[in-house]
Order: sequence, then C-alpha cells, then structure tokens
Amino acid sequence: MAKGITRREDDYAQWYIDVVLRAELADYSPVKGCMVIRPTGYGIWENIQKHLDRMFKETGHVNAYFPLLIPQSFLEKEAEHVEGFAPECAVVTHAGGKELEEPLVIRPTSETMIWSMYKKWINSYRDLPLLINQWANVVRWEMRTRLFLRTTEFLWQEGHTAHATQQEAEEETLKMLHVYRDFSEKYLAMPAIIGLKTESDKFAGAIKTYTIEAMMQDGKALQAGTSHYLGENFARAFDVKFQDKDKKMKYVQATSWGVSTRLIGGMVMSHSDDSGVVIPPKVAPLPVVFVPIWRSDEEMDLVLGRAREITQDWDPLFYKIDDRDTVKPGRKFNEWELKGVPVRIEIGPRDCANNEVVVVRRDTGEKTPMPMDGLREKVEALLDDIQQSLFDRAKKRLDDNTHDCDSFDEYKERVAGGGFFRIHWDGTAESEERLQNETKSTIRCIPLDAPEEDGVCIVSGKPSKRRVIASQAY
Amino acid sequence: MAKGITRREDDYAQWYIDVVLRAELADYSPVKGCMVIRPTGYGIWENIQKHLDRMFKETGHVNAYFPLLIPQSFLEKEAEHVEGFAPECAVVTHAGGKELEEPLVIRPTSETMIWSMYKKWINSYRDLPLLINQWANVVRWEMRTRLFLRTTEFLWQEGHTAHATQQEAEEETLKMLHVYRDFSEKYLAMPAIIGLKTESDKFAGAIKTYTIEAMMQDGKALQAGTSHYLGENFARAFDVKFQDKDKKMKYVQATSWGVSTRLIGGMVMSHSDDSGVVIPPKVAPLPVVFVPIWRSDEEMDLVLGRAREITQDWDPLFYKIDDRDTVKPGRKFNEWELKGVPVRIEIGPRDCANNEVVVVRRDTGEKTPMPMDGLREKVEALLDDIQQSLFDRAKKRLDDNTHDCDSFDEYKERVAGGGFFRIHWDGTAESEERLQNETKSTIRCIPLDAPEEDGVCIVSGKPSKRRVIASQAY
Repeated sequence: MAKGITRREDDYAQWYIDVVLRAELADYSPVKGCMVIRPTGYGIWENIQKHLDRMFKETGHVNAYFPLLIPQSFLEKEAEHVEGFAPECAVVTHAGGKELEEPLVIRPTSETMIWSMYKKWINSYRDLPLLINQWANVVRWEMRTRLFLRTTEFLWQEGHTAHATQQEAEEETLKMLHVYRDFSEKYLAMPAIIGLKTESDKFAGAIKTYTIEAMMQDGKALQAGTSHYLGENFARAFDVKFQDKDKKMKYVQATSWGVSTRLIGGMVMSHSDDSGVVIPPKVAPLPVVFVPIWRSDEEMDLVLGRAREITQDWDPLFYKIDDRDTVKPGRKFNEWELKGVPVRIEIGPRDCANNEVVVVRRDTGEKTPMPMDGLREKVEALLDDIQQSLFDRAKKRLDDNTHDCDSFDEYKERVAGGGFFRIHWDGTAESEERLQNETKSTIRCIPLDAPEEDGVCIVSGKPSKRRVIASQAY
Repeated sequence: MAKGITRREDDYAQWYIDVVLRAELADYSPVKGCMVIRPTGYGIWENIQKHLDRMFKETGHVNAYFPLLIPQSFLEKEAEHVEGFAPECAVVTHAGGKELEEPLVIRPTSETMIWSMYKKWINSYRDLPLLINQWANVVRWEMRTRLFLRTTEFLWQEGHTAHATQQEAEEETLKMLHVYRDFSEKYLAMPAIIGLKTESDKFAGAIKTYTIEAMMQDGKALQAGTSHYLGENFARAFDVKFQDKDKKMKYVQATSWGVSTRLIGGMVMSHSDDSGVVIPPKVAPLPVVFVPIWRSDEEMDLVLGRAREITQDWDPLFYKIDDRDTVKPGRKFNEWELKGVPVRIEIGPRDCANNEVVVVRRDTGEKTPMPMDGLREKVEALLDDIQQSLFDRAKKRLDDNTHDCDSFDEYKERVAGGGFFRIHWDGTAESEERLQNETKSTIRCIPLDAPEEDGVCIVSGKPSKRRVIASQAY
C-alpha cells in the first residue's frame, strides 16, 4: 500500500483516481472535464497506438486526417446522429475576431465530415473499399467526468470504411471488433466479451453496434471499444453513390469503429493494486528499472559500473538505471512500484561479488536472484510471463464473476455487488428500461457466442431465445 | 508532364496546388481554410513523426498531451502573446447546450496551458529540466491559406521545456534548432539556413526566435521550423518559480519549438516536377512499386508470379505490386510518378526470361536493368542514392541562388526573380519595414554562421556589422 492511495477495499472509485494522479498518468487541467495526459500515461498511449496501428495496417487500412471543425448543419443531415451528439457539442461561434456565418462544432466523431469527403472521392466500384482510419482528438461535453474513463476531450482512433455491399461492410464491422478484442487481450491483458449492443444503446446513426466489454476488479463492466455497421445511413445523408459493376448507381455501405484513451483507464482498473499502477509489459513505457544500492562512493562506482556494463547493448528505451543520489533505494522501490514498471532489478555490492542481481516482479512482488550473465533474455522471458499472468488473473476474475441468473429478485440483490450476469431478456426496450431503472445496471451486450436457449425474460416473464450480459458499468 | 498539372514555368503557385491535389496528398474540406490530409500525404507525415520523434527522444524529451481548449484569460497573461495570437483564435462560446461562463479558445499554440500545468509540477531544481513535447492539432484563423503551407488547422509538434538557468535554456533552444536542420537535410533532403529572426518577426512572447529557412524551386524562402528562447516570460505570467540549490526562489526559464505539416509543402516544393510529386525515399510512404507488364493471362501469371517470388521476404510496407488488370501499364507508370514513389520496377515476360527487371528512378527517370538476384539490396542502395541526389540538387540550388548584394536598387530589381540575398542591414525596424514595403520581400534571418563584416545597410546607408538573408517568402 502506498502513501496517498486509498485502499481498493475502502473506496474503489477513489483508489482509481489516487492511482492515476499519484502515478502521474494524468492530471486535472484548468478546463473542466479536460485532463492532461502526463508522460507516463502518454507513453502507454504511444504503445497502444503503435500496436493497434500495425494491426490496422495489416488488415489493409491507411491513415488520414480530417478537419477538427464541422459545420453545424452537417450533423443535422443524419437525424439520429444529430439527436445523439448535438447536446454534447462544443460550438465555435467566433473566429478571427468575427462572428461566423455558420457555427462550427468541434468533432464529437467524424462520420459527417468524412462522408462529405467520400462523396468527392467515391464514384465507382473501383474506388471501393475505402479503408481509412484517423488518430485524433474529439470533444464531447460531458457532465460527469472521470480521468481517462470519461473526459470532455479525449484521444482516439476512428476507422471509417466504405464498401460496395452490405455483406462486406458487415464483415468489416466484425473484423475490427475482433481486432479490438485481440488487442485488448494480447496487449492490455484485458479479456473481453464481444457482442451486440441493444437498440437503445447503439451508436447514434448506426444499424448495429458491437462492443467489447471488459470486467474491472470491482466486477463492473467497461465498454472498451465499439464497431458500428452504419448501413447506407451516412451515404444517404451525404448522397454518396457509386456505379457498380452492373452499371447501376448504388448507395455506399459504411462502417465506423473506435477505441480511445479510455483503454488506459480500463488497463489501470484491471491490473493495478494498492501500491500503484500495474502495467502489462507490452504497453509499458519503461519495462525495466535498475535500482543500484550503495552506502559509499566506492560502492556507488562499483554498482553503477556493473549496471552499465550489463546493459551496454540493451535498447535505451527498454530500461533505465535510477542513479539519483538524492533518493534512498527504499523510496525508489516505492516510486517505481507506484509508476508500474513491470520489472525492478536491484543491484548491490554483494550481488556484484556474486555476479548476480535481484529481480522483482511488479505484479506479484516476487523476488528472484538471477545471474548477470544472459540477464536480458531472462528478463524478457519474465516480462512474457508477467504479461500472461496478468491476463490469466483477469480471465479468471471474468470467469469466476460471470453467473447465470434466472430471477429478477436474485439479480437485483446480486448485481450491486459486481459481476456479469447472464440473464434472459425479451428483447424489448420496456424490459431493458425497467431493469436499468430498478437496478442501476444495464444490458451490456448480446454476446456473439451466446447459444440459442429457450428461457423467460427475468423482467417480464416473456419468452427469450438467448441470454444477454447485464451488469453495472463505468 | 502530367495531365491536369500546370507546368512550373507557366505558374509555379498553381503547379504546387495541382501537384498536391492530383497526387492526392491533400484535398480542400468544406470548412474554409481547413484541409483534409489524404492517405499519401498522411503517410509522409507519419514518417516525419516517426523520425523526428526518435530524434526528440534521443535528446531526452518525452511526449505528453495537453487540452485543446484554453481559457481566453490565459492568453491575456502574457502581453505580447495575446497581441500576437488573439486575432487568430477560434472561440468556443457554447458547449453542452449552454453559453460558457468564460469563452475557450482552440489552442493556437500551448505555452499558456502548459505553463499553467508546470506551475503545479515544478517546485524544486530537482524537477528541472522538464523536457516535454506534444504532437497535436492547432487552429489559427488565417485569411489566406494554401494547402500544407498555411492552413487554419494544422498538425504539428510543440516542444515546451523548463530549465533552471538561462544558459541551459538557450542551449536547448539551439539544440532543437539543429535537430530541425538535421532532420530537414537528412530526411526531407531540404538544406536550410539557420539563423535568428529579427525582433519584429519573432514569436509573440519570445526573447529570441531562431528559424530554419529552406529555398523552394522558385527561389523563395520557406520558414520550415522555429525554436524560441522564452526567458522568464511565461514563468512570470503563470508564476512558476522553483527553489534552487542555493535555497532561493527563482523564475523558471523556458523554450518552445515546433515544426508542422508545412514541412510536407516544403518537401513538395523542393523536389517535385511537372509529372507530379517527388518524395525523398526516407519519408516515402511507399518506397517501391512493381508494375508487371503482360498481354495474356499466361504472361500475367508468369510476371505476377515472379514479382511475388522476388518480394516474398520483403517488408510489406516497403513495396507494392500493382496487379490491377483494369489499368494499362502506361497509365500505372503515370499514376505512380504522379504520386512520387521513388522507385518503379517494371517486370515483363522478356525480363523474366532474362532473370532481370527494369528499375526506374522517379527523380531522374533513369532506367536501369538489374538482375532479380539480390534485387532488394540494389534497390536499397538506389534509394540511398536518390535521397542523396535530391539533397545535392537542392543544396546546389540554394548555393547557386544565394548572392551577396550591396545596393538597394539592385536588390529591388533582383529579389522578385527569386533567390536569397546576403545584404547589410542596420538592425532597425524602420529599415526592415522599408525593405518589406518596397520589395514585398523580408529579412529571413541573421544566419548563425554569418561572419562579422563591416558594411553599410542597403536601405539606410547606416553601419552594419554582418550580413542578413533577405528574400521573398511563403
């Protein structure tokens, strides 16, 4: 347990804020609801970007950049879209010292801007598919914000693809959903359930919204990414047609999909502990820190010299030697634990005499002496092991805390305590709303792998064909 | 010469716009002054980011992210800063359906936001130096815009560093100026003169502004990057003090430095020709394209098969095989020339029989047969050669078109035709303004390497101690 961090068992919500602030992942800014992403937090985002971007490119996507400011009238071209986003918009009314003829909104998402451009670029089936992604900031004026999880401005990527057929667009929507789950599991060590959002919970302007839902340590759900099949909605709004092989003019089919800096919040809430943040090695800005231990100048020269010798051919972005002489080793241990460096290597005079070091895992605190010889390979294997253990632990939590539940009374009693509940639901907005109002929980998704199963809705008692996942959520 | 591209000799300004649009580097957006950066253009930006970011990290900097929106009152805390930037600001007055209590401006640059945070983070000399960079979008409401060179919204990086001493801050300012020049020369093949801006041309809020100035093909200057020594100006505005080793409280010293998507415009104007864009290989999104040539299905199978065989262990981001069967080879040649792919490899049935290919350089059009065996290494060597030739050609242009000039009449006559002029200037704003008004040219910088030399100002006839560079500019 670290100074200044509330314990999880005392107040999980406060613990999260304490960890993010004290580990210097982010800070509050002078603008309400906007945060500053500090270097450690941004380093995680850079790693998320690096790996996800590669996965996007491997699936044929390219990056582009579209304007931040969108004419207000564009939003209005898609009825559901404007209804969903207009209340959250930040509006530029003046610029260059004058009032604008038409106000501009700061993009809350870029479908409208991008489809206004696709109209210029798409004429023929030969121009399709168009597979574009954008890394950008967006602004949604939120009333209640929480560092990383919900902020007025956030960083994200938004994929916007255009296709000739519904089938191809639906395949793309699901492909990117799977990319998100793979990324979440392999890099953030965050297992996720994938499924379809209910009608009332889908993206404003979508035909179908798919989601990946992860479980935090308190058993609540976090929507970690979404992928939308948009049908012809935006093509119709912006009149984007193409001439198909059969010479007929057809509306273009669309998808969009996004993940954001919210992933960092999910990662923190999945793995961290009362000593600070725990970062999966694959996205850690700094995987390894050396803490040399000395009592005299001679010892300092010895241990620093050996640490430098060991690491002379290591990648400088892979490790750091904490050679500060104004801070005691014990405090250094606490600092690096707080900041979530996956592996700490302690090296003192006796270790040097024995040609070994003491290697400490951040996730379990386990200490293991290791020979200096071949250390790099052993540390890399340990990092792989930490990555896997974090995933295994999170997977076990997800499995252990996912329950079948067949009674609304039982559900009401249990859901407040956390966990996912596989319940029967009749598919109506009425039952969904009643569930939400009476329990402060929501239907998270209709899992893609839910088998057909006859049952009765726990709210209405009406027939149901499969179970959905319901829980409290962030 | 390519269809739809004005020739440089006919209208250089129109040629530039034609090249950018036709090569699909960028497009106009529905919002005045804002452009869309299309995948080819954005691919260049991604390479610029990748290399520059590495150079920043190698010099000890880390990335972070600060809010897009800045309270209007923040700008007013530094008198010169607000005077310089307020007229260009886009202002958010409404958000979340309500009028804001205090308007927010979209960052035109982030000194004020960042120094408001540095006040929280800096207390002691132990917190210094603080070496932070941000990759972000900024908005400056410009009246006259030009794709990449001057747009209302642009992408850039802005470094903001905090130091204990003036000397250290001044060293940082110059260090980053040299990083910019190195980057410009080694990656964009764009030689640049480095120097100090005049008092009237410096950044609003800076003590000193340094610049890198490149010469375009028409002999005009392009300011390609700037690095500012800000002194205590922002520390005073935001009351950022630290306790030094001597226990005294002192104001923190600041620098800031930035380059933007303008670099892409500079790169285009430096190297491109009447056939389209020419991209230096080190920043080319696609270095190599194969254009297979066939007349029958059998030939198609043969040449595509051989192309795939040759490239089977090549990095997929390094090359593309243009296997479209709806487009003739000649048109493919033109398309890839237009888009600036540095090396085209033609492979036909006869080439296959001879186990060779024809390799074509984009910069010179030179065609060379090369054996298929060991092709990758030869192509890499050729790319290095192209990179170097582009630099050499641009360097020769810069040298050939930089002239000493000692008479204002001669200067007036010659400057409109392009080129840099090394002139004596008395250092006064009056002479600078007169030069500008009478010639539509400006003093670009006082070169760092300008030797002391007694002379007389070409405008006023008053004494001058060294020559400055003057020219027309973008």
